Amino acid sequence: MSTKTKRFILPESEIPTAWYNIVADMKNKPLPVLNPGTKQPLKAEDWYPLFAKDLADQEMNQTDRFIEIPEEVRELYKCYRSTPLVRAYGLEKALDTPAHIYFKNESVSPVGSHKLNSALAQAYYCKKEGTTNITTETGAGQWGAALSYAANAFGLELAVYMVKISYEQKPYRRSIMQTYGAQVIASPSMSTKAGRKILTEHPNYQGSLGTAISEAIELAMQTPNCKYTLGSVLNHVSLHQTIIGLEAEKQMAMAGEYPDIVIACFGGGSNFSGIAYPFLRHKISGEKDTRFIAAEPASCPKLTRGVFQYDFGDEAGYTPLIPMFTLGHDFAPANIHAGGLRYHGAGAIISQLKRDNLIEAVDIMQLDSFKAGILFAQTEGIIPAPESSHAIAATINEALKAKEEGKQKTILFNLSGHGLIDMTAYDAYLSDDLTNYELSDEIIKANTCKLEKLI
Amino acid sequence: MSTKTKRFILPESEIPTAWYNIVADMKNKPLPVLNPGTKQPLKAEDWYPLFAKDLADQEMNQTDRFIEIPEEVRELYKCYRSTPLVRAYGLEKALDTPAHIYFKNESVSPVGSHKLNSALAQAYYCKKEGTTNITTETGAGQWGAALSYAANAFGLELAVYMVKISYEQKPYRRSIMQTYGAQVIASPSMSTKAGRKILTEHPNYQGSLGTAISEAIELAMQTPNCKYTLGSVLNHVSLHQTIIGLEAEKQMAMAGEYPDIVIACFGGGSNFSGIAYPFLRHKISGEKDTRFIAAEPASCPKLTRGVFQYDFGDEAGYTPLIPMFTLGHDFAPANIHAGGLRYHGAGAIISQLKRDNLIEAVDIMQLDSFKAGILFAQTEGIIPAPESSHAIAATINEALKAKEEGKQKTILFNLSGHGLIDMTAYDAYLSDDLTNYELSDEIIKANTCKLEKLI
Repeated sequence: MSTKTKRFILPESEIPTAWYNIVADMKNKPLPVLNPGTKQPLKAEDWYPLFAKDLADQEMNQTDRFIEIPEEVRELYKCYRSTPLVRAYGLEKALDTPAHIYFKNESVSPVGSHKLNSALAQAYYCKKEGTTNITTETGAGQWGAALSYAANAFGLELAVYMVKISYEQKPYRRSIMQTYGAQVIASPSMSTKAGRKILTEHPNYQGSLGTAISEAIELAMQTPNCKYTLGSVLNHVSLHQTIIGLEAEKQMAMAGEYPDIVIACFGGGSNFSGIAYPFLRHKISGEKDTRFIAAEPASCPKLTRGVFQYDFGDEAGYTPLIPMFTLGHDFAPANIHAGGLRYHGAGAIISQLKRDNLIEAVDIMQLDSFKAGILFAQTEGIIPAPESSHAIAATINEALKAKEEGKQKTILFNLSGHGLIDMTAYDAYLSDDLTNYELSDEIIKANTCKLEKLI
Repeated sequence: MSTKTKRFILPESEIPTAWYNIVADMKNKPLPVLNPGTKQPLKAEDWYPLFAKDLADQEMNQTDRFIEIPEEVRELYKCYRSTPLVRAYGLEKALDTPAHIYFKNESVSPVGSHKLNSALAQAYYCKKEGTTNITTETGAGQWGAALSYAANAFGLELAVYMVKISYEQKPYRRSIMQTYGAQVIASPSMSTKAGRKILTEHPNYQGSLGTAISEAIELAMQTPNCKYTLGSVLNHVSLHQTIIGLEAEKQMAMAGEYPDIVIACFGGGSNFSGIAYPFLRHKISGEKDTRFIAAEPASCPKLTRGVFQYDFGDEAGYTPLIPMFTLGHDFAPANIHAGGLRYHGAGAIISQLKRDNLIEAVDIMQLDSFKAGILFAQTEGIIPAPESSHAIAATINEALKAKEEGKQKTILFNLSGHGLIDMTAYDAYLSDDLTNYELSDEIIKANTCKLEKLI
């Protein structure tokens, strides 16, 4: 019993020093992002007004397989990295499965999720080019908390538009951002044209990521020396998150195993990309035949039930047109507690990988996600974020399949964050106060059929 | 810059396999605990009705310097241990101090604090002797959360009496306990004689640790096959916590340093003992001249302003008489947010060490603790528990003294937990809604002068 290693941690000297850029290895590159006016492909410089130049360049980089992590970012990574790779013996035993289950524990970051991996990088590049102010949006607050930490670390002023329902349901995350020194505004707000418009039309609108993005972009464009930052969806965000999978690859080697299946929850794609891409490169090269599963909420199923189409990244239509699996940019997801998964689309890279059948997707019902989360808490001790519980539910399904088939599969999933700030959601679940949300084909069709007109 | 190691983590093979029992090394042993009726010293078997036998034996053990950690407990320690030792470069820079500041990060445990170290051990020994039910009390909820995790891990039913003000102020911790499957009762409650008595006399009483202990003991004594457990104060709890300091000792060696000063916050003594005792053995032996500082809240200053006297551990007087620095067992501490420090007395070992001038104590005002906590969050990224912020405030004071004196001191403090579930307290501080609590000599005298009658 005591000879089994449970946690695998890399020494600081083994933490990867470069991020992995999967686009360089993709046989079919993602379709280009388009200017909505001209319908012409964007160039890197088209992004410069919005994003720091280095980030815009990373966004468009299709050639460099590895991109060096700046020393200043690596120093801050050391505060919590490497994160542990953990063998889930407790969960395996409870499921009585022959599968070996591993999880990468990103919940140990000081803000409790993987989001810090990109927040530190983005704040660094903004600071480097002399930016003084940055803006962003946040859903459940994980990204906002991470960026607040990062902005403070690099001495930047930060304004966060927080989806109103989360602002009210998750006051602790708001306080965390304020503790790090950020300004937090409930979205929709009266501080932007986009916010005023929606509040005029729908005075009680509870907000969405799409609206909050519109507000944050608008503020950034109207503030001198200010850049916008985004916590998911875009290529450069996925790039920064690959530190997760690059570490996990070395740690799986320490454990003497290689995953047959890699699983992560899916909102905009940041934690899924992070754990998947480094392993996916060996599938693209033909060396390995790993399966990759994105676990979506059944109430926001862009990968399984959306259409592949050019669409806006935000509700108001301020962003370029992105080639994505989407439910339509004005799709209003149900108020599930996994706020970080309430986003209408998938990024350009992921969408291409899905088209090429390099990744799979499954839908998880809200109640199944909480049931899985509680089993995980009781067997592995960590209360997972409601988002991460979607990955756990998908993992449990695969582990039970392995049991049925009598096969010893090795499953790796990403525990993107802990749920200690989401206890009201657990409370509601334990009091039988949560429901599943069914989504009719009609609603999906009503939102996506408008997209035809975009191009 | 990148050559500086920030975090020191032991491989699983280096995690200590035995706890350190300081009593074996103490020249002046702690005074014996007394039966309140006969005034005779307790024997180990006198504890058996209340505690698991192995725990009672550990409580009285004055001879074995090291006590082996059972394999089952070591397996569960692996879920989060070793915890990182971290060099606080960010805090050092902000203070512009020549001091080297290290902290042991116990906040990475799944329940967010060091309390799990003893919870796992206590649940194990209860299970081992065939106990099916256990009871306990909890203040801020850190101990209750840890024991809920541990009870679930060993398949025990658990009832937690949670101090009513925390039950209301900290609903997230209540939900965490329920997620692990524990029953949580606000104390004082109508479920015990002790609770009914106090509610009859003071219908709106907000509760205290002393009262909750009385209720938990009463329930344990009246339930078949049930034992009581305690999260602090007693010798066996301190014993289990020494894993903190034993690891830290090895990790400081990895960093090539040895602490001149060791600091921890002080409630009942569990995290202070845990980090201090392993280093203190080298002071007792004359090898080292390290200073040890217990950081108390100014509103509950038993070590600096209490009297050394025999007193009860609980409010109703159910426990044996313990030789302690105390403010009186019916002292009602102010409602500071550091709920885990709201306890009237210090354990027998600590009290003896204080009498022998082997340790020091300082008092920290509530506002100073939050100011320190926010500086720590902004420089090291981790939002500390309000309890731990007392240790940070004391550390900052010592680091600034080192700067004044131009001396390169090495300071080690214990970050006993994170504050992610205490964000309402940070909210209140940031909104200027918190105050300091001054404690007059008259109040202290009024509570402690009654003690004379006890023996």
